[in-house]
Amino acid sequence: MVDAKNQPSVPHVVIVGGGFGGLYAAQSLGKAPVKLTLIDKRNFHLFQPLLYQVATGSLSPADISSPLRLVLNQNKNTQVLLDHVKDIDPDRQQLTLDNRTLSYDTLILATGVKHHYFGNDQWQNIAPGLKTIEDALLMRRRIYGAFEAAEKETDPEKQKAWLTFVIVGGGPTGVELAGAIAELAHSVLKNDFHHINTTSAQILLLEGVDRILPPYAPELSIRAEEDLTQLGVRVQTQTLVTQVTDSSVTVRQGEKENVIPARTILWAAGVKASSLGKVLNQKTGVALDRAGRVRVEENLSIPGYPNIFVIGDLANFSHQGEQPLPGIAPVAMQQGKYVAQWIKQELRGQTHSPFRYTEVGSLAVIGQNAAVVDLGWIKLTGFIAWLTWVFAHIYYLIEFDNKLVVMVQWGWNYLTSGRGARLITGEDSLPKGVMSNE
Amino acid sequence: MVDAKNQPSVPHVVIVGGGFGGLYAAQSLGKAPVKLTLIDKRNFHLFQPLLYQVATGSLSPADISSPLRLVLNQNKNTQVLLDHVKDIDPDRQQLTLDNRTLSYDTLILATGVKHHYFGNDQWQNIAPGLKTIEDALLMRRRIYGAFEAAEKETDPEKQKAWLTFVIVGGGPTGVELAGAIAELAHSVLKNDFHHINTTSAQILLLEGVDRILPPYAPELSIRAEEDLTQLGVRVQTQTLVTQVTDSSVTVRQGEKENVIPARTILWAAGVKASSLGKVLNQKTGVALDRAGRVRVEENLSIPGYPNIFVIGDLANFSHQGEQPLPGIAPVAMQQGKYVAQWIKQELRGQTHSPFRYTEVGSLAVIGQNAAVVDLGWIKLTGFIAWLTWVFAHIYYLIEFDNKLVVMVQWGWNYLTSGRGARLITGEDSLPKGVMSNE
Repeated sequence: MVDAKNQPSVPHVVIVGGGFGGLYAAQSLGKAPVKLTLIDKRNFHLFQPLLYQVATGSLSPADISSPLRLVLNQNKNTQVLLDHVKDIDPDRQQLTLDNRTLSYDTLILATGVKHHYFGNDQWQNIAPGLKTIEDALLMRRRIYGAFEAAEKETDPEKQKAWLTFVIVGGGPTGVELAGAIAELAHSVLKNDFHHINTTSAQILLLEGVDRILPPYAPELSIRAEEDLTQLGVRVQTQTLVTQVTDSSVTVRQGEKENVIPARTILWAAGVKASSLGKVLNQKTGVALDRAGRVRVEENLSIPGYPNIFVIGDLANFSHQGEQPLPGIAPVAMQQGKYVAQWIKQELRGQTHSPFRYTEVGSLAVIGQNAAVVDLGWIKLTGFIAWLTWVFAHIYYLIEFDNKLVVMVQWGWNYLTSGRGARLITGEDSLPKGVMSNE
Repeated sequence: MVDAKNQPSVPHVVIVGGGFGGLYAAQSLGKAPVKLTLIDKRNFHLFQPLLYQVATGSLSPADISSPLRLVLNQNKNTQVLLDHVKDIDPDRQQLTLDNRTLSYDTLILATGVKHHYFGNDQWQNIAPGLKTIEDALLMRRRIYGAFEAAEKETDPEKQKAWLTFVIVGGGPTGVELAGAIAELAHSVLKNDFHHINTTSAQILLLEGVDRILPPYAPELSIRAEEDLTQLGVRVQTQTLVTQVTDSSVTVRQGEKENVIPARTILWAAGVKASSLGKVLNQKTGVALDRAGRVRVEENLSIPGYPNIFVIGDLANFSHQGEQPLPGIAPVAMQQGKYVAQWIKQELRGQTHSPFRYTEVGSLAVIGQNAAVVDLGWIKLTGFIAWLTWVFAHIYYLIEFDNKLVVMVQWGWNYLTSGRGARLITGEDSLPKGVMSNE
């Protein structure tokens, strides 16, 4: 294949964001007669569904990350650019990057979402969310640091606050974090401390609506709550968080307000669209939804600009029913592939069909041997669901990068109940109280 | 075994530092009739000989780290304390920690060494050394960030400076870093960039004396230099560094001074003892050597204080010939075991012999399939030496923590020439020029 960068005649497709949507689009265009540029702020694709395992010390960052250049280096038409997109000029078809501009013929925006604290951005430093590797390592420091601080604390009240872990948000991430922390406290760490009994730790999972995993079938929500309770998690539904400080969280259940002393508060409650959605809205007038997601056409482009596509978590696609498609990896992957296909059809002068999402189901893992899987036509729980979850994730992981190591690590963790990656690293952010001057 | 913490009559042994010396001492005392406290600033033992593989993206931090609580949780007499030792009172037999004091009957200091810039501490931020996980991740950011910056740079001179890697110091760490970076540039990354040819990168290894690996047999130094040259490293001996800036290094060879434009300068040149050596000197009058190491007695205690032992890199043990024992893992391990044995003999009223180091050889790896091994009675090079190196390291790694994953990762890297752990993480320290505002 001829190197496309020397052929100014082929169209230039620019993809912003190397998540599931952007990467699948890039891979599907790898042999197409286009010049392709993938822009990301980071030099790796992150397998976000397993980020909670980095946060809880089962996996290392590299286990769930694939270097973008490595994944794409077989595609001669593709270049990877480590850069920020600061602005979009849709009429000139130009992006403003850090120190330069870049022209495009077709633009695919796939920059995803970030945490949302519902107007309480000051909670961000206290109650970290889980979107990046750095977030995960911060959570890891907080979690393991809390056990260390409890071990050194002599005041029983303060010790109890160190051993109270509050997870805000009962979606899949919240459920997975709560289950993993419960396993730490009740099994992995139980022989490792002298002054504390880690099994006395309280793990609270707070959810605003009346059940956890609200998008799943109700019977799966019930089963997930049972499984979590068995692991030692206290699930509180219809509970709203009204205040967060570095040593407590205030919750409201109906009329009752309650202050829970807790030193580790983890945020799994909400997301909002990346800021490029807003830029696009200002420049093209495209509508955004309440979470800042871009309302896209049936072919994932935006009104009036058929050469600008928005995919993945950043897109609000509501043409398939009443609800927008959920912000999950399979949606982003299918959208990435669809847009790549659309571009190839266009180059060949072929006709298009609108995007249709093929349901592949929802999965959430609760602990070793326990998960819930909703495939639509069948609902699984317990060990079978857990096995399904394991194989689904390994399948996607090895698709990119042959992450053999993850399988071995999982096998090993499974046999030993180990958490080998429980390092507290990054010198600046141990919880106060663990170390005075580190 | 009865939990020793409830028996105030047993002696309290305090070990400071969970490196090779401290951890081996702790393990050897795990069943002894003592109360044992191991203090470390970090919650993990670090397998430092492989730290360069974290720096160059072959392994993840957790692959070469073992949680101290996990390693020691079978020893009921042992507690692990995450703390700083700020001061020592040898007459009261007391340590000052962060927020409390701790009494000991016997003290084992094993806090090792840190980088030494020979009076040029301002170079520290420019030319990072390699002692901690954070150091390794910083080096990784610098190395991979430099290739990214070169890819974006349009000025050929500046691009060349980004593609020039200078390693200061031709000991094992310097040799290993230089070899690994050369492999990155000449093989691993060579298909991953569009605008630069990574094989044009210059890797310079600078050494002050007349050969690299000075403590090894001269023929091994020659072979190591040949192997490095073949990999694409330029070795410059009898070369002193006189100035380091963020874009150049100034070197002197004889009378000639020379400024080399380079954006990545890595420090593998010198170490000095941890600051507890100085505290001990002030409080006990014990002699230090030029590097700040504590001159110990034949049984590794210090003069006048038979209950204070100093082991590992922090100790200068010169009773076996003219040269002090080198600062390598086998010395520390043997010293840790010796002191544990000494304490157990003392408790039983048995007699002691002075410490004697059993030579186990020196190893340095140069690249895939190339290493030099000096076992004293035999010298190995090439593939056989590399195999020896691999098995020696795996042997020690699995001794603690069954690091099966490292074997799989190595096997995988070997077959694929991959560097899966080449993530640029930690948002604040990308080299200037890669990203304006990250």
